[in-house]
Amino acid sequence: MMTQMKKKIAVLGSSGSIGVNTLNVVAQFPERFEVIGLAVQRNITLLEQQIRQFHPQIASVADEALAAELRKRCADLKVEILAGESGAIQVATHADMDMVISAIVGFSGLIPTYRAVLAHKEIALANKETLVAAGALIMPEIARQQGTLLPVDSEHHAIFQCLQGHRREDVHKILLTASGGPFRQFTREQLQSVTVQHALRHPNWAMGKKITIDSATLMNKGLEVIEAHWLFDIAFSEIQVVVHPQSVIHSMVEYVDGSIIAELGAPDMRIPIAYALSYPEQMAIDAPRLDFTTLKALTFEEPDLQKFPCLHYAYQAGEIGATMPTVLNAANEIAVEAFLQKQIGFVDIAALILQVMDAHVVRPLITIEDVVEADHWAREKSKSLLTTMKK
Amino acid sequence: MMTQMKKKIAVLGSSGSIGVNTLNVVAQFPERFEVIGLAVQRNITLLEQQIRQFHPQIASVADEALAAELRKRCADLKVEILAGESGAIQVATHADMDMVISAIVGFSGLIPTYRAVLAHKEIALANKETLVAAGALIMPEIARQQGTLLPVDSEHHAIFQCLQGHRREDVHKILLTASGGPFRQFTREQLQSVTVQHALRHPNWAMGKKITIDSATLMNKGLEVIEAHWLFDIAFSEIQVVVHPQSVIHSMVEYVDGSIIAELGAPDMRIPIAYALSYPEQMAIDAPRLDFTTLKALTFEEPDLQKFPCLHYAYQAGEIGATMPTVLNAANEIAVEAFLQKQIGFVDIAALILQVMDAHVVRPLITIEDVVEADHWAREKSKSLLTTMKK
Repeated sequence: MMTQMKKKIAVLGSSGSIGVNTLNVVAQFPERFEVIGLAVQRNITLLEQQIRQFHPQIASVADEALAAELRKRCADLKVEILAGESGAIQVATHADMDMVISAIVGFSGLIPTYRAVLAHKEIALANKETLVAAGALIMPEIARQQGTLLPVDSEHHAIFQCLQGHRREDVHKILLTASGGPFRQFTREQLQSVTVQHALRHPNWAMGKKITIDSATLMNKGLEVIEAHWLFDIAFSEIQVVVHPQSVIHSMVEYVDGSIIAELGAPDMRIPIAYALSYPEQMAIDAPRLDFTTLKALTFEEPDLQKFPCLHYAYQAGEIGATMPTVLNAANEIAVEAFLQKQIGFVDIAALILQVMDAHVVRPLITIEDVVEADHWAREKSKSLLTTMKK
Repeated sequence: MMTQMKKKIAVLGSSGSIGVNTLNVVAQFPERFEVIGLAVQRNITLLEQQIRQFHPQIASVADEALAAELRKRCADLKVEILAGESGAIQVATHADMDMVISAIVGFSGLIPTYRAVLAHKEIALANKETLVAAGALIMPEIARQQGTLLPVDSEHHAIFQCLQGHRREDVHKILLTASGGPFRQFTREQLQSVTVQHALRHPNWAMGKKITIDSATLMNKGLEVIEAHWLFDIAFSEIQVVVHPQSVIHSMVEYVDGSIIAELGAPDMRIPIAYALSYPEQMAIDAPRLDFTTLKALTFEEPDLQKFPCLHYAYQAGEIGATMPTVLNAANEIAVEAFLQKQIGFVDIAALILQVMDAHVVRPLITIEDVVEADHWAREKSKSLLTTMKK
């Protein structure tokens, strides 16, 4: 029997939550994976540790000055250290590499991921913005190549698994579960006085700040709806969000005969990460398991779109299509940052997004530059509107 | 495009709950299915209606006198009416037929189903006793033929679906859900005074009397554990029963990575029946659907093997193998009938089964006659022990 070929991977965003968990899985299976490249935004302390542990050929840091500092620290190592977007692109398209784990948070992840697609790399996608903003460009390209794009967040991983072994034409709808966030039971009045500190406390998952706020506004679920639309080629009217506060069921697919397939598991990102790394196999990873004898009751309810309008705006942007989802996403990034900086209140996030969407004249998406342009317009518009609403 | 060939089916036990639901599904898709044969035990009134609606070529009644009566009633029709076990076997092996829906309750379903297997028919199996008693003979035969055996009860249908698109070697364990029956929260003392009337009230499913009592003792789940062992070629130690009183999740499969796939649905047997009829396609049947906005909380607990020893005995019989599961099943059939006839109490069902198992000298299963002989021995032993314990 031949020795199994190692899968050669690159991790974009290796210092973030998904990146760290990816390397945790890789470290559990050194015989299966080899790390070729790593890229971070700013955290060179962690990147240095990762370089010393995983010996990548190249690494990249978004910030030029920090890249220079890291070069000094790693002078004893063979690694090539690059900087900026071009550095991330080199990591994402390295000739020796098979699969990119795309886990840079926000719009910055888009271009390197897009370039990896064009370079015919397998993609394990944790960066939501890639498909939200550029699904219309990326999915046809993947289809043309008969390429591979595997979802890494827990909901789309669940849907992906629930679709296995079934015929696409037998799907009735996707049931995307949502924890409902920490403010699910708040009144509209209570939402007015939500603080940053409170919003950063997610009930079920430990994640980065941006995604934690998105979970609190339900924009995270909205972005996932748009992502599901592109990943699974399904109409928005056939994607239903179900609030499930315990986050034990990670999502479901309902078939035409009324049968529903669900994926459940412990809230540990290593499960979807490992699945994407080893698909179509599954690996016996060391991670917590669900224990039904100690499980709390599982409950379900409808999302309240009055209290959480971001989810509604995401459906609207998705239905409109073209540049609108890009604009939704960009306005949201600016609004969340402003909230984190205590420049605006929690409910102002949705208000700002609505104003930017209302002001946007939708344009067709033909090239990736159209995406970048719409994103740029929306950020500028958001910032200028922000000055009128700061508290 | 060619017209789709109709699948030609025979229903063994067409007057029972599964049989009636099967014909309901068939009636919803007249362009896909043709009924070739029907067989019942005694209900000729319903069989006559079914013959007039579905025009089978042959029909069979277990009771000879009733078969004669039905021949008179159907004198205006072209149908051939047979009687006894040989009649049921002719229905199960008819040359024009593709698939047998095996839904005769109890051991009587075994021989016709086994003969259908030998005749290379596709099998949709609702009769639990077939695999409990003769899995060791039937599964190797199906494998040798590369034949098809599809489970029709809701739990095994769920497991079958949850295994689709996954590698068999990635399965960690099967989680077989159980409602827990109407006496789940009873004390041992309360179980002493359970009446027939009370035991016949199942919380979630409308079913025949035998299976309803089996649900109350958890023997139904025990028989399903043995069935799952044979259907999915999995060790008893890798089958875990989880009590889930709402019966919304119909069963689950846990994979080596900790990911759990579950099947959920409304409690309607037409879903698994339709799946078996149309596999690998799914049909848009007219049946109730789950509505997550109105769903009760889903809860889970461990089965109490002290209060419900039948489940424990089934695991033991399964582990021992050979003739022991046949003996377990036969003793249970006699015990349940005696309970329904008010000859013994509810807790005596388990007591009788244990006595019969203790008295049994296990023999190897080489031919189907070995099964019939073990079954016969266990019934005689049960009846003689019964005389000593009647109240």
